[in-house]
Amino acid sequence: MDYREFYRGRRVMITGGLGFIGSNLARQLVALGADVLLVDALIPDYGGNLFNINGIAERLRISVADVREASMMNHLVRNREVIFNLAGQVSHIDSMKDPHADLEINCHSHLTLLEACRHHNPDAKVVYAGTRQIYGRSESLPVTEAHLVNPTDVNGINKAAGEQYHLVYNNVFHVRACSLRLTNVYGPRQLIRHNRQGFIGWFIRLALENRTIQIYGDGSQLRDFVYVDDAADAFLRAGATDACNGQAFNVGGTHAISHRDLTTLLIDIAGTGRVEYIEWPCEKKAIDIGDFYADSSKMITATGWQPTVDLHEGLTHTLAFYREHFNHYAAEETKQA
Amino acid sequence: MDYREFYRGRRVMITGGLGFIGSNLARQLVALGADVLLVDALIPDYGGNLFNINGIAERLRISVADVREASMMNHLVRNREVIFNLAGQVSHIDSMKDPHADLEINCHSHLTLLEACRHHNPDAKVVYAGTRQIYGRSESLPVTEAHLVNPTDVNGINKAAGEQYHLVYNNVFHVRACSLRLTNVYGPRQLIRHNRQGFIGWFIRLALENRTIQIYGDGSQLRDFVYVDDAADAFLRAGATDACNGQAFNVGGTHAISHRDLTTLLIDIAGTGRVEYIEWPCEKKAIDIGDFYADSSKMITATGWQPTVDLHEGLTHTLAFYREHFNHYAAEETKQA
Repeated sequence: MDYREFYRGRRVMITGGLGFIGSNLARQLVALGADVLLVDALIPDYGGNLFNINGIAERLRISVADVREASMMNHLVRNREVIFNLAGQVSHIDSMKDPHADLEINCHSHLTLLEACRHHNPDAKVVYAGTRQIYGRSESLPVTEAHLVNPTDVNGINKAAGEQYHLVYNNVFHVRACSLRLTNVYGPRQLIRHNRQGFIGWFIRLALENRTIQIYGDGSQLRDFVYVDDAADAFLRAGATDACNGQAFNVGGTHAISHRDLTTLLIDIAGTGRVEYIEWPCEKKAIDIGDFYADSSKMITATGWQPTVDLHEGLTHTLAFYREHFNHYAAEETKQA
Repeated sequence: MDYREFYRGRRVMITGGLGFIGSNLARQLVALGADVLLVDALIPDYGGNLFNINGIAERLRISVADVREASMMNHLVRNREVIFNLAGQVSHIDSMKDPHADLEINCHSHLTLLEACRHHNPDAKVVYAGTRQIYGRSESLPVTEAHLVNPTDVNGINKAAGEQYHLVYNNVFHVRACSLRLTNVYGPRQLIRHNRQGFIGWFIRLALENRTIQIYGDGSQLRDFVYVDDAADAFLRAGATDACNGQAFNVGGTHAISHRDLTTLLIDIAGTGRVEYIEWPCEKKAIDIGDFYADSSKMITATGWQPTVDLHEGLTHTLAFYREHFNHYAAEETKQA
């Protein structure tokens, strides 16, 4: 069966479903005719935004609930056939200010979800949103899944533990699960209210507001980027493919680009914004990882996934989206790092 | 300065100080003239035992406190120059029954300790008791620190996170820290009341009681063993050696031995006990790691550490200790897996 056909009438759940990737995934699932339940705690500053389901809200259900609450999760997981587990705290910076909060959100909650599946829905398939951040500084490029896990911040450590719980529950308790290690995902519906969740959303906001984008050092560090629709497609494929069970897969871009070139491209497409090169702040340098880009061939081989939206096209869509809906994403600028 | 001389008058703290390795380390530190503070929550079944400091209790201080309690830890870490962080939940089996409890003990508590150091004693040196368990099944032997971290149970996942917190706090917040990845440590003062904390202590108990030791499969799986005094010596060296900061080191035995040969040796030295080979229980097989032995050359190079007590000598000491003090360690047999 085609992996898209697999979702027709399928009972799915998305934790973090009102967030950036979760809501874009929900749009695809609704279009495919799935029975979609979104779970989101709407924790301030985390990325959940009711406007993210504008236009599809009537075609899915929402439970405003915290994945850490066992009794609620025990109830919600019942009868869900595929669970996309995207809830999380994604700010590296916040994790270093309040490491216990990061632990609660990125470890405790996943154990609660997995225990709920183990005891109340052992037939569920769970797809976890992992991150390339767990690799830390790359020792070789492009980075494959054989690279050492060596996180440089508390968020990366806890995200690695969250991933490993899923793989252990697959191997020991037979709750089918796999993990997608996402690189830098960008696109419509990303949080751009503050700059603590990665730089790409924030750079997009600054360009839109015709402000100055500050780049640390000479901007030569390399990264790869995935458009959010391509990331969502990877989740769909992994959820429908049992060959993925018990494994982690890189999900990255087709090629690497420097911060400098990315910013030039962004400003060029936007027609607004400017760039300024500044010295590395010490505390940022301490958790920077240098060049990073992923080898996604394991995912491509296992599922046939391929990124289809290039950076020019993706940034063009993204800028148009935020231009149209700016007030829903950037009306207030919350406290910054 | 000689690493042993380094501890004369040195203000040290040992979390899990009433436990197996902690109390043996405390004996060496007291003998070296250190100012020793033991912190232990004495959680039932975890390994803390007041008899472990029999004979040295007058020469150290004890705080019965839980490392998870921030206000207490903020107080206790002040002025401690070296902190040996050995508190933990060490049962693989318990971690699969109650993963949240394991998370609390093996992750939350270390963040609390490290935050206490960061904010109240940033000059402390912290040595963490890591474990070979984080490697999971070995992909090559002997296992070096370059081997992938791929735990097979929740305890291994959380122990890996605990180690990584220490390294990140070293790198980012300059709280000097390192980790020792211990293989199978054995010797006097290990918990032998139940069989959920690894097999070696339990096998020793069965031999002493002239009972039958059950071995899964043909007993051919290989392991390496470290006598507890050698493990304690590794902690002393790591605590005194700033070249260790920010790194993890295997601390293993000089050679590998099969379960079969180990048990034969044990029964031979004890003069009591017998062996029976049984089929692998499914749930044990699922979290078994096959052959494992560590390459400790990184530790040897960095600190000059060498294991000095061979298995015959170590088991002889151990059996003699438990024969003399059996009632303090095995009087009641608590619930088994």
